[in-house]
Amino acid sequence: MTQANFNDVLAQYQQDRNKAKSESKDNSNLRITVLGGGSFGTAMANLATRNGCDTIMWIRDQDAAKEIQETKINKRYLPDFTLEEKLKVSSDLEASVKDRDLILVAIPSHSFRKVLKQIAPLITAQAVVSLTKGIEKDSFCFMSDIIRQELPEVPYGVLSGPNLAKEIVQGMPAGTVIASHSEQLRNAVQGALHSALFRVFASDDVHGVELGGALKNIYAVAMGMGAAYNVGENTKSMLITRALAEMSRFAVRLGANPLTFLGLSGVGDLFATCNSPLSRNYQVGFALGQGKSLDQAVAELGQTAEGINTIEQVKARSEELEVYMPITCALYEVIFNHAPPLSVALSLMENGHRSDVEFVLPHQSDS
Amino acid sequence: MTQANFNDVLAQYQQDRNKAKSESKDNSNLRITVLGGGSFGTAMANLATRNGCDTIMWIRDQDAAKEIQETKINKRYLPDFTLEEKLKVSSDLEASVKDRDLILVAIPSHSFRKVLKQIAPLITAQAVVSLTKGIEKDSFCFMSDIIRQELPEVPYGVLSGPNLAKEIVQGMPAGTVIASHSEQLRNAVQGALHSALFRVFASDDVHGVELGGALKNIYAVAMGMGAAYNVGENTKSMLITRALAEMSRFAVRLGANPLTFLGLSGVGDLFATCNSPLSRNYQVGFALGQGKSLDQAVAELGQTAEGINTIEQVKARSEELEVYMPITCALYEVIFNHAPPLSVALSLMENGHRSDVEFVLPHQSDS
Repeated sequence: MTQANFNDVLAQYQQDRNKAKSESKDNSNLRITVLGGGSFGTAMANLATRNGCDTIMWIRDQDAAKEIQETKINKRYLPDFTLEEKLKVSSDLEASVKDRDLILVAIPSHSFRKVLKQIAPLITAQAVVSLTKGIEKDSFCFMSDIIRQELPEVPYGVLSGPNLAKEIVQGMPAGTVIASHSEQLRNAVQGALHSALFRVFASDDVHGVELGGALKNIYAVAMGMGAAYNVGENTKSMLITRALAEMSRFAVRLGANPLTFLGLSGVGDLFATCNSPLSRNYQVGFALGQGKSLDQAVAELGQTAEGINTIEQVKARSEELEVYMPITCALYEVIFNHAPPLSVALSLMENGHRSDVEFVLPHQSDS
Repeated sequence: MTQANFNDVLAQYQQDRNKAKSESKDNSNLRITVLGGGSFGTAMANLATRNGCDTIMWIRDQDAAKEIQETKINKRYLPDFTLEEKLKVSSDLEASVKDRDLILVAIPSHSFRKVLKQIAPLITAQAVVSLTKGIEKDSFCFMSDIIRQELPEVPYGVLSGPNLAKEIVQGMPAGTVIASHSEQLRNAVQGALHSALFRVFASDDVHGVELGGALKNIYAVAMGMGAAYNVGENTKSMLITRALAEMSRFAVRLGANPLTFLGLSGVGDLFATCNSPLSRNYQVGFALGQGKSLDQAVAELGQTAEGINTIEQVKARSEELEVYMPITCALYEVIFNHAPPLSVALSLMENGHRSDVEFVLPHQSDS
C-alpha cells in the first residue's frame, strides 16, 4: 500500500464520521484570526478554514498578504501546498482582530509582546491563544506570561505539540495539546482545529504544556552531540529520560504538573525533536560534539540555533530557582566555557540524583 | 574524536572517581548469583564481578557452563566479549543459590516459575531480583507476582530499563532502574551493579517498573506497522504518547504510579524499543503493515515475536479490568481478525479520550 492509499482511507474515514455526526456543530459562526503567516500559523489557519470557521490570517507584509490571498499559496513557507479557497489573508491588523472570537498568535517569541501591545486596544471579548514555542529573551517570560501581562483579564491558552507544519498540510495524522484554565476556550479551539487527521487534546496545565515546547531544543543539541560520538540506544534513551527529569523538575518549580510531560507537549515533542537530525539544534550539537567551537558550528550552518539561546537562558534561570539541571549546565560549559563535549555524557552519569523519577521516590541525601 | 576516545575518557573518569572515593564500599563480601546465561544475565554478572562482588553465574547446561568458565567467553550470546577472570560459572544450582546474598533471576518468562520452585528449598536469607521482562502465559503474572507466589516472605525487586546487553558490555553509557519496597535491597543492587558507565536508579514502584518492560513490545509492533506506511514524525510522536497513555492507564489500574512512565523503565525503554528497526517486534509490524498475514510475517522472520503474545494477553486482561487500550485492541484486530492495518492509525484518532494526560485533566464525558 502506498502513502496515497493511506490518506485516501483516512479521508474516507473522516467523511464517514462527519456524515454519522448529524449532531455535528456548525462552525460557520466561529470567527478565527491567526496572527502571523509562518508555516505553522498557515497550517492552523488552513485547518480552521477547512473546519468551516470564518478565518482570517494576518500578515504584516502587505505584498505577501496580497499574494497569498490571490494565489492561495504561501510561497515562502509552504510553497508546495494550495490553501483553502475560503481562507482570507489580510495585512490590516485592526480589521483582523476586531469582532473576532479567537485570536491565535503565531508570531516569533522576539516580536510576540510587540504584537500583543498593538492589538491590546482592539481586544474586547476575544480569547487569545499562543501558537508560539519559546522564551522571551532577557525577561525569561513564556508566551502565556506575556499574554497575562499585556492583556490582563483576557481568556488565554497555549497550543503545543509535535507539529511539523509540512506533515500537517500533507494530511499526515498528528496531535496537539490546547492548554487553558478555561474549558470554554479549550472547547472552542478543539472545535476550530480538531479533525480526523489532526487531534486536539486538552489540558489545564498551561505552564507545563508550554515548557515542553520551550525546553526541548536544549536536548536536541545534546542528542546531536551524542550522535557525533556514535552513542548507542541505551545512552540515547537515558538522555531522553534524564532530559524529562530535569524538564519536569524545572516545570514543577514553576507550578506545573510533572505528569504533563508524559503527554504530546512533553515526551511527544521531545521525541520528534530529538529524532530530527536535520534540525539546526541537532546539527549545532553534532558540530560541537566533533570538537568544533560554537563560532565554527554557527559559521558552518550559516545561522544560529534556538537551542543555544535556550541553554543560556535556562542555565541562568535554573540557578536563580535552585533547580538541578545537570544536562543543561554541562551543555552550557561545553558551549561557552570550552569544556570537553564529553562532560555532557558525564553529567548523565553523575551521582547527584539516584532516584529514577523523583516524584515517585524522593531522592535520598545519603545515596 | 572516535568512539575509542570516548570510552577512554569515560574509563579515566571512572578511575578518577574510584580513587577519589576513598570511603567507597568494599563489595568483596557481597555474594551475588545470576541465574541464567543469556546476554543480559551475562552482562550483569560481569558488571557485579568487575565491581568486586563474589559472583556466580548459573547456567543449566553443564557443557556451556564449563566452556564459559574456562574460556571466559559466552560463545552463544556475547561471542565478541571476554568476561572478567574472577566470574565463576556453574551448573550446580544448589551450590549457586545456597548462602548467597542476592539472587538475580535472568530466566525467560516461560521458565521463570519453574526455576523459582527449584530454588525455593534453598532460600534462607537471600533477596531475589528479577532481570526478566515479560508476562507469564495464561496466568498473566508479572515476574514480581511469581516471586511473591513462589517465595513468599522473601525480599524482592525487579530491574528494568533500556538495556541492550551488547552496548553494556561494550562500555556504552547506560542506565537502569531497580524497583523494590526494600531500601536495603535497592542499595545492595546499586552497590553490586552501579558504575560510572552503568547507572542504577532507584524506585519503589515495582509494578510500574516491570509493566514498562512487559508492555513496550506491543508498541514496537505498532511502530513497525507505521513504518510500512512511511508515517511522519508527528504521527510517530503521537503513537509514542498514546502508547504511554494506555500503558500508564493499565498500570494505574494495577496500583502503579503513572509518573513511573516518565522514567527509564517507561519512556526510556519504549523509546529504545521503538527506535530499533531490527527488532523482531518492529519487523513483524512492518510485514503486517505491508498487508501480510501473521502467518506470512512469522514465516518470513523464521520466528515469532514476543509482542504478538503480549498483545493477545494484554487485550484479554484489559477487557477484564475494563481499561481503555485502543492501540492494543486495534493491533489485536489486525493480527487476529483480519482488520486492515490502518485501523491502528484510526485508533489514535478516535474520540474516546480527549484529554492529553488524563491524570492531569480528567476526561469529560461530553467531549
